[in-house]
Amino acid sequence: MSDLPSRVTINEDGPREGFQIESATIATGQKVELVDALSETGLKEIQVTSFVHPKRVPSMADAEEVVRLVRMRSDVRYTGLFLNEQGLRRALATGRLHIRGSISLTASAAFLARNQNATPDGQRQARCDMVRLLQSEGIPVDAGGVNAAFGCNFEGEIPLERLMATVRDVFDLADELGVRIETLGLSDTMAWATPKAIRSAVGAIRSRYPDVRISLHLHDTRGLALANALAGLQMGVDDFDASIGGLGGCPFAAHKGAAGNLCTEDFAFMCEEMGIDTGLDLERLVAAAELAERIVGHPLPGSVKMGGLLSRYRAAANAA
Amino acid sequence: MSDLPSRVTINEDGPREGFQIESATIATGQKVELVDALSETGLKEIQVTSFVHPKRVPSMADAEEVVRLVRMRSDVRYTGLFLNEQGLRRALATGRLHIRGSISLTASAAFLARNQNATPDGQRQARCDMVRLLQSEGIPVDAGGVNAAFGCNFEGEIPLERLMATVRDVFDLADELGVRIETLGLSDTMAWATPKAIRSAVGAIRSRYPDVRISLHLHDTRGLALANALAGLQMGVDDFDASIGGLGGCPFAAHKGAAGNLCTEDFAFMCEEMGIDTGLDLERLVAAAELAERIVGHPLPGSVKMGGLLSRYRAAANAA
Repeated sequence: MSDLPSRVTINEDGPREGFQIESATIATGQKVELVDALSETGLKEIQVTSFVHPKRVPSMADAEEVVRLVRMRSDVRYTGLFLNEQGLRRALATGRLHIRGSISLTASAAFLARNQNATPDGQRQARCDMVRLLQSEGIPVDAGGVNAAFGCNFEGEIPLERLMATVRDVFDLADELGVRIETLGLSDTMAWATPKAIRSAVGAIRSRYPDVRISLHLHDTRGLALANALAGLQMGVDDFDASIGGLGGCPFAAHKGAAGNLCTEDFAFMCEEMGIDTGLDLERLVAAAELAERIVGHPLPGSVKMGGLLSRYRAAANAA
Repeated sequence: MSDLPSRVTINEDGPREGFQIESATIATGQKVELVDALSETGLKEIQVTSFVHPKRVPSMADAEEVVRLVRMRSDVRYTGLFLNEQGLRRALATGRLHIRGSISLTASAAFLARNQNATPDGQRQARCDMVRLLQSEGIPVDAGGVNAAFGCNFEGEIPLERLMATVRDVFDLADELGVRIETLGLSDTMAWATPKAIRSAVGAIRSRYPDVRISLHLHDTRGLALANALAGLQMGVDDFDASIGGLGGCPFAAHKGAAGNLCTEDFAFMCEEMGIDTGLDLERLVAAAELAERIVGHPLPGSVKMGGLLSRYRAAANAA
């Protein structure tokens, strides 16, 4: 375990990942309450909403209102997801968000075709257009990413060669656009990754692009998110997306395949217990997870909020 | 990940771990139905019940009846837990169980004192008495174990030195009793282990006792069971207890601290996806987990039964 980082950055995705798929209508005030609670946990980046078309994702129709009402701390970056120019304009218009560009490509052509009615060339062109738009607005573009990096429900496994070819496409496109990629995100969009695949992928990318920081976005649909995150840590990865309580899917609802992200508080707990500094207040994270659970009105998958932190047992044992 | 074993043995504990803590009365026929389903999954060892006093654990009062009704396969070992002479006599009287002796000590004196009103010396004496009884009955004793191997809710962390001292006590006692320990089980009874602690412990034991097979019994109270199992695999551990569906605790009931074991089907899925042979039929395991969930009448924590295996997606992708 000698490559474990001494410190990790955890980027909170829960409000965006979670509220977009919850079937119940969550009140704007409750979304804001959760973001405000998360702001007090030590997190440095929180994705608060998604600027998608309200007709397509009605639960995100209050995106602007959420952003307006959040009690923003100066030491936290608040972001919003945007997928097209209209979304970007809306995010910019709030005047309160940290806007950052990324060149993300999808490793599976079948996923693009079946899920987004797009081709790899079409996606590449769309990314070019977006980056040029961001550049014209003076917005930094410094990240790249690969979606469906490990496997795809329509295409099956993504072999390492394909992943590496997609990574190369991302860097080629960046070169073409004058973008310097500092962070490369690998997204296990459909939860196909294993610890072994994570280690292979991170190792291959690190050998080829030693100066790039690797970030992982891990879905927990088949329960492997934390084990996959451990494999990332063992390879020195120190940047992770995570979701409070494991928000991002409702395992007790109809859409079984859509389980949540790596659970923020469970991952932070594992890191802290191994001496990896997260900069996070575990007690407050657990309280935020409990709040998220009350807001969505059904159990969320995170374990530590049920099993309890060890700090209290330690304190009692020391006192005894 | 070069130390990953090519094959692992998974010992199923679900019927015993699960039914003993479920508050609802589970019909004997349903327990038998679950064991019978598990028998068809490729598992080679299943712990079917516990011979404890029916007044203390009423849900296990039907232990003999369960054992009598199970449709036993000749290639599966069926075991039952016994903690004292009376339990052993009951297990023996069934005439249908694989009885095996183990010398297990507890690493935490505080746990012994607070939970069992016992001392380390008292526990050692009780183990001596039990082993001598087993020997007089001609029952093989070939295993050792350490409970609360990583931490204790009453005592806090179990440092590696303490764990190693307890392991040494186990081997000393075995020497004294003429027992040769082939397998040493480490039980994370109260879910204090981390992947880092697992690696340290397994490494230290392996250095000192290179010929002993190490086995892990991991509780998932704080969500780390699968990551801890991965750490074990990475150290070459190839023997694990697990529990179908994650049976062994009810995270949605009052006793929050009692979450289940490492989930059999999730662990088997992770192993198989990394090319580690489990000898298990994943589809049948998932079906057994679904059956367990129907029997207990509330959601069980396992993820793969909700997220789905990858085999069907692969088949569809190959067909496309």
